[in-house]
Amino acid sequence: MLYLIGIGLWDEKDISIKGLEAAKKCDKIFIEKYTSLWKGDLKSLGINAETVGREDLENNINKILDIAKEKDVALLVPGDSLIATTHNSILLDAKKLGVKTKIIHSSSIFSAIGETGLQIYKFGKVSTIAYYYSEAPYNLLEDNLKQDAHTLFLLDITKEKLMTCGEGLKILLDLENKFKKKLISDETEVVVFCKAGSSEQILRYDKIKNLLNLNCFLCVIIIPGKLHFLEKEYLDSLRA
Amino acid sequence: MLYLIGIGLWDEKDISIKGLEAAKKCDKIFIEKYTSLWKGDLKSLGINAETVGREDLENNINKILDIAKEKDVALLVPGDSLIATTHNSILLDAKKLGVKTKIIHSSSIFSAIGETGLQIYKFGKVSTIAYYYSEAPYNLLEDNLKQDAHTLFLLDITKEKLMTCGEGLKILLDLENKFKKKLISDETEVVVFCKAGSSEQILRYDKIKNLLNLNCFLCVIIIPGKLHFLEKEYLDSLRA
Repeated sequence: MLYLIGIGLWDEKDISIKGLEAAKKCDKIFIEKYTSLWKGDLKSLGINAETVGREDLENNINKILDIAKEKDVALLVPGDSLIATTHNSILLDAKKLGVKTKIIHSSSIFSAIGETGLQIYKFGKVSTIAYYYSEAPYNLLEDNLKQDAHTLFLLDITKEKLMTCGEGLKILLDLENKFKKKLISDETEVVVFCKAGSSEQILRYDKIKNLLNLNCFLCVIIIPGKLHFLEKEYLDSLRA
Repeated sequence: MLYLIGIGLWDEKDISIKGLEAAKKCDKIFIEKYTSLWKGDLKSLGINAETVGREDLENNINKILDIAKEKDVALLVPGDSLIATTHNSILLDAKKLGVKTKIIHSSSIFSAIGETGLQIYKFGKVSTIAYYYSEAPYNLLEDNLKQDAHTLFLLDITKEKLMTCGEGLKILLDLENKFKKKLISDETEVVVFCKAGSSEQILRYDKIKNLLNLNCFLCVIIIPGKLHFLEKEYLDSLRA
């Protein structure tokens, strides 16, 4: 059996009791930390996990699945367990090899954004702001704004670095300057949510120009669509 | 201090270690079960919680906040802690009264939908299918399909009953018959995901006409937009 276990937003205490119990019963435990950064200390929970990388999961997954044919194997995944396409591919591969799977969910930025006061029902499609200046996030923003939807932007993670809030906002402004559809300006009020679920989390609602120097990472940026008055009241309370 | 603690998708073991530790330190613990049905047994975790209803949270929240001025109070919430607008309103009220708050997240259907094989990035705005035949879900579907987005439909919960999958699909077909925008027919292939996160969960991908008699509840319905070939492959694997 292969257990895909979400370990939640921030540290080792974000895993569910169900996830922890399942992991502890497994013969072998792997953890991946490349689809998101994760800072917990599993050893304090009595768990010894071997870290696996992109190569192990995307090109050599059969090594892990071979073990799961005979034994109970856990793959721990930051956030919820099936957010990245990688993990769905693993499930498909497992099915082809006749390896049974079980999924255990956990907290994720996709629901934690409720903490911004924005209604989760009103978020449109999600995009990632990439260092290589893909125009996709800008086009998506246009579509979402037409639908009065809020837009959640994830920020690029590479082997070398994590994109900061300020970098992400700068790229959005550069895309505006290039395509000039008047979707945003440095006066646009946006939400930044950094280190969600941690005691150091940052949640701000301000004009882009006031956030460009925000050097924190593990952030998401949200450009709100049309605001309900309660959303507006909540966002305004974040200014204080 | 008021702790808003998500208790996750299904039963008492879906709470995070962080959430459980926080709740156990509290002087008083409340649980609400009206924004979603929740079936866990908290007593087995050593937690005694008093159930509160809509009236307690929406009109008499000051009673709870008054306690939280002096003592540590936990409010346990099914799923993640800030999905319903009710809980955001509580945070605003707490701020006005000078009551400190802390939010602890958990698993939610909003990220668990990754289990369908559909990419979470490609979901558009979310709607609830209501017994009173609101046309909102139909209009939202139209907008989302234009954007090639997947649409997640939550199903109505009233004091008397929980909408079944079949009822929800029937309402969508009735709306199609009324507005005739050719968005769906009984041949449309949809995903139904019931009792997510439980050992009894049901995940099916089939034509609407084959799901109309599905009598299960605690479901969501997803009408996929444009499918990536890997999404298609995954959905097809659910037919087996």
